[in-house]
Amino acid sequence: MSELTHIDQHGHAHMVDVSAKVSSLRTACASARVFTRADVVERIRKAEMKKGDVLATARIAGIMAAKKTSELIPLCHPLALSKVTVDFLLHDSGEIEIHTLCRLQGQTGVEMEALTAASVAALTIYDMCKAVDRDMIISNIRLEEKEGGKSGHWQRQGGTPHA
Amino acid sequence: MSELTHIDQHGHAHMVDVSAKVSSLRTACASARVFTRADVVERIRKAEMKKGDVLATARIAGIMAAKKTSELIPLCHPLALSKVTVDFLLHDSGEIEIHTLCRLQGQTGVEMEALTAASVAALTIYDMCKAVDRDMIISNIRLEEKEGGKSGHWQRQGGTPHA
Amino acid sequence: MSELTHIDQHGHAHMVDVSAKVSSLRTACASARVFTRADVVERIRKAEMKKGDVLATARIAGIMAAKKTSELIPLCHPLALSKVTVDFLLHDSGEIEIHTLCRLQGQTGVEMEALTAASVAALTIYDMCKAVDRDMIISNIRLEEKEGGKSGHWQRQGGTPHA
Amino acid sequence: MSELTHIDQHGHAHMVDVSAKVSSLRTACASARVFTRADVVERIRKAEMKKGDVLATARIAGIMAAKKTSELIPLCHPLALSKVTVDFLLHDSGEIEIHTLCRLQGQTGVEMEALTAASVAALTIYDMCKAVDRDMIISNIRLEEKEGGKSGHWQRQGGTPHA
Amino acid sequence: MSELTHIDQHGHAHMVDVSAKVSSLRTACASARVFTRADVVERIRKAEMKKGDVLATARIAGIMAAKKTSELIPLCHPLALSKVTVDFLLHDSGEIEIHTLCRLQGQTGVEMEALTAASVAALTIYDMCKAVDRDMIISNIRLEEKEGGKSGHWQRQGGTPHA
Amino acid sequence: MSELTHIDQHGHAHMVDVSAKVSSLRTACASARVFTRADVVERIRKAEMKKGDVLATARIAGIMAAKKTSELIPLCHPLALSKVTVDFLLHDSGEIEIHTLCRLQGQTGVEMEALTAASVAALTIYDMCKAVDRDMIISNIRLEEKEGGKSGHWQRQGGTPHA
Repeated sequence: MSELTHIDQHGHAHMVDVSAKVSSLRTACASARVFTRADVVERIRKAEMKKGDVLATARIAGIMAAKKTSELIPLCHPLALSKVTVDFLLHDSGEIEIHTLCRLQGQTGVEMEALTAASVAALTIYDMCKAVDRDMIISNIRLEEKEGGKSGHWQRQGGTPHA
Repeated sequence: MSELTHIDQHGHAHMVDVSAKVSSLRTACASARVFTRADVVERIRKAEMKKGDVLATARIAGIMAAKKTSELIPLCHPLALSKVTVDFLLHDSGEIEIHTLCRLQGQTGVEMEALTAASVAALTIYDMCKAVDRDMIISNIRLEEKEGGKSGHWQRQGGTPHA
Repeated sequence: MSELTHIDQHGHAHMVDVSAKVSSLRTACASARVFTRADVVERIRKAEMKKGDVLATARIAGIMAAKKTSELIPLCHPLALSKVTVDFLLHDSGEIEIHTLCRLQGQTGVEMEALTAASVAALTIYDMCKAVDRDMIISNIRLEEKEGGKSGHWQRQGGTPHA
Repeated sequence: MSELTHIDQHGHAHMVDVSAKVSSLRTACASARVFTRADVVERIRKAEMKKGDVLATARIAGIMAAKKTSELIPLCHPLALSKVTVDFLLHDSGEIEIHTLCRLQGQTGVEMEALTAASVAALTIYDMCKAVDRDMIISNIRLEEKEGGKSGHWQRQGGTPHA
Repeated sequence: MSELTHIDQHGHAHMVDVSAKVSSLRTACASARVFTRADVVERIRKAEMKKGDVLATARIAGIMAAKKTSELIPLCHPLALSKVTVDFLLHDSGEIEIHTLCRLQGQTGVEMEALTAASVAALTIYDMCKAVDRDMIISNIRLEEKEGGKSGHWQRQGGTPHA
Repeated sequence: MSELTHIDQHGHAHMVDVSAKVSSLRTACASARVFTRADVVERIRKAEMKKGDVLATARIAGIMAAKKTSELIPLCHPLALSKVTVDFLLHDSGEIEIHTLCRLQGQTGVEMEALTAASVAALTIYDMCKAVDRDMIISNIRLEEKEGGKSGHWQRQGGTPHA
């Protein structure tokens, strides 16, 4: 039976040993959603047409956060990421989708990096829009797909986000 | 009409001037939810009874992340937080509630700090449990209440989380 | 006669005591120049018209670097900056001007923060354009103006940059 | 024709994929100049004879900054640098030359690390001497030479610094 | 005769070149001791039985500090640690033993990482208990054993800690 | 009876509320000792006469670490330190004393900052000398004196270090 990692036989947290794992090309994709109002999305979109600063700022924040993952998540291994992308889809309904991808040639997966990038991009959107919508909610931060490593390819079943 | 902050009249991102704002005691409360399976919550609970490491680790991660907020969110001001708490409620249904509180005597609010603490605590739970439930979803990261500053007291309307 | 600060009577580096200095509103403006080719500036400008990403990225990098100044410069005091702006002027000749402003209510000046923001914004432009112009030079990083503190207002004499 | 990197086909910033690049031994050399007054250089030199603190501090700051490059420059890859040196040449005319070298066995170059080390060493000199010369200018931050990777050996043409 | 590393032939600090060293599996074990009163150890032990927070917090702090070693120790190389553990032994006499282990497949040893983890775990215990015992002393931070690299296996002679 | 701080009534770690504490001028002095061989101290001393790099590097490392204390110690408050000094005493017997002082006008003490500076300065000496003495021991990291805050002046009783 599979077990909680990061907890040794005495129940103590530790950074698990990955030195014996095979190095492979690993990719992880994650997503998040920001629920705001239609008019806020409209303002962000117009701003994007002019200067793109809200999304440009959130994109940079997400990329930089991916690189900080092992500083934030106590038991994550430090990783030399070889690729990070952060993209956005704006919906007229007042919803913003965030999609991230991280890649690495290494001994451990990059799920946490992709999830951290998505979370911090979402928090940055909140920060830049909170003056007009304090009620905004960040939801559905989740792993979408991963490839590489012993467990191979995995893809989330069921396309509809839930919470 | 209220406007997107952090964007100057030319649409450029900048860190807004707070030097003329009155210093007041500011508190913000945020929450997040992690949706996993009932058996994972059960394992975390038992682990907590023994050593408490999953939640203890997530709690420390959340507190340390609150202090890193201005490094993660590009346009956040560096703040000398005077209090941070991170708490958890485990539901048998397979849901984990995270509640955070940040406090500061200063010229700008601590909403982003409370939201960042909640997000990173949730990501840490994901990291420590992903070996047993890769499908876990982090949702409903949201501001619950704030106090202090020009806008005074604010509390979210409607107790039921949505997404 | 004025003396090198940060060196005690024995010649040892130390972080000088500012606890007895009066708290005042302090502002510093700095600038830097990136010398590249006309066609590179043209590409950056067109990119800016579309998405603005080179300059948007450099702007965010500069703002975030201002907040990291005391981590980078060994003897700088940690400061709670209340405002940071980073702006750009593109010249058809192939020159990019960077102008930064930092502000603080506090006991020590923000010159290093403004200079660090300008330097890192320039380095970011170099990074994003080095594939098309490895010869690029960053020059004329300098303080332009400062206000506040015991020495009051100061402005650089002579408008023409030299090197 | 070569293109701006770090911008995808839609004009969005991203951290480019280096996972398919060949790992090779890569070296980059950069330089910077600080223009101050003859008497400031004289004081630094005498201090160096006694305790060396101004240059020793700037050297340490430059080395530590090289290791922080991927935290400062948004789209830089995190790198496991295998060597960093920072050296100084003092000219009686009131000019300080800074020379840096970074080395790595890896999939991406270390130009930004060498340039960042030079910039932060220069900023540290500014910080330690600004009490006696606020007019100091940091100039000619530039790549001098690089080796390794697909593009092989490259050396700057023309030995005279310009700005 | 062996020489001080990190100092070049001119006596200047630099980050030594490890690019030509053979990559091997390297492990280092370190320890530290905190000397407090019997009743403080008793309180920590009881707390550990209930929630474990003092030691859980110190353990997380030690693990995270191991990952920060190259940011703290100026001439340390950045390393991608593959394993970190931090453990504690409580003695009724009022003494707390800290044992750490770091592992890496790489070109340079992990002694500093193991020592840094032990030091920061000890400082965290001090921080959490200083309200009840300000006199606490942290001692005997030392390397216990190392394996891998050119010098092979090494173990400290003499089991009794001294100071 | 005094209680462990940083643990709430349920035994959970948290960053304690200091917002109601009076702001006062606070100073803390700490010390540490590095036990090495007489010939290593001799080499460091000679190096210091020439370039001072071992001690200069350790001094800078200690000062920078003081500023990083709240990033390292999970429940420490972020503080705007107004002064940091790190000094050394070399003994012919092969012992190095480290003395640190931190100062702040604020609501919480700076003991942890002084202790962290001493620890990291000691670790840096270890790092720079480990090639010639792997047996080195860091001991007697302890608070020497504090001033300011509700508890007023405190000084360690008994001048002889023990362990």
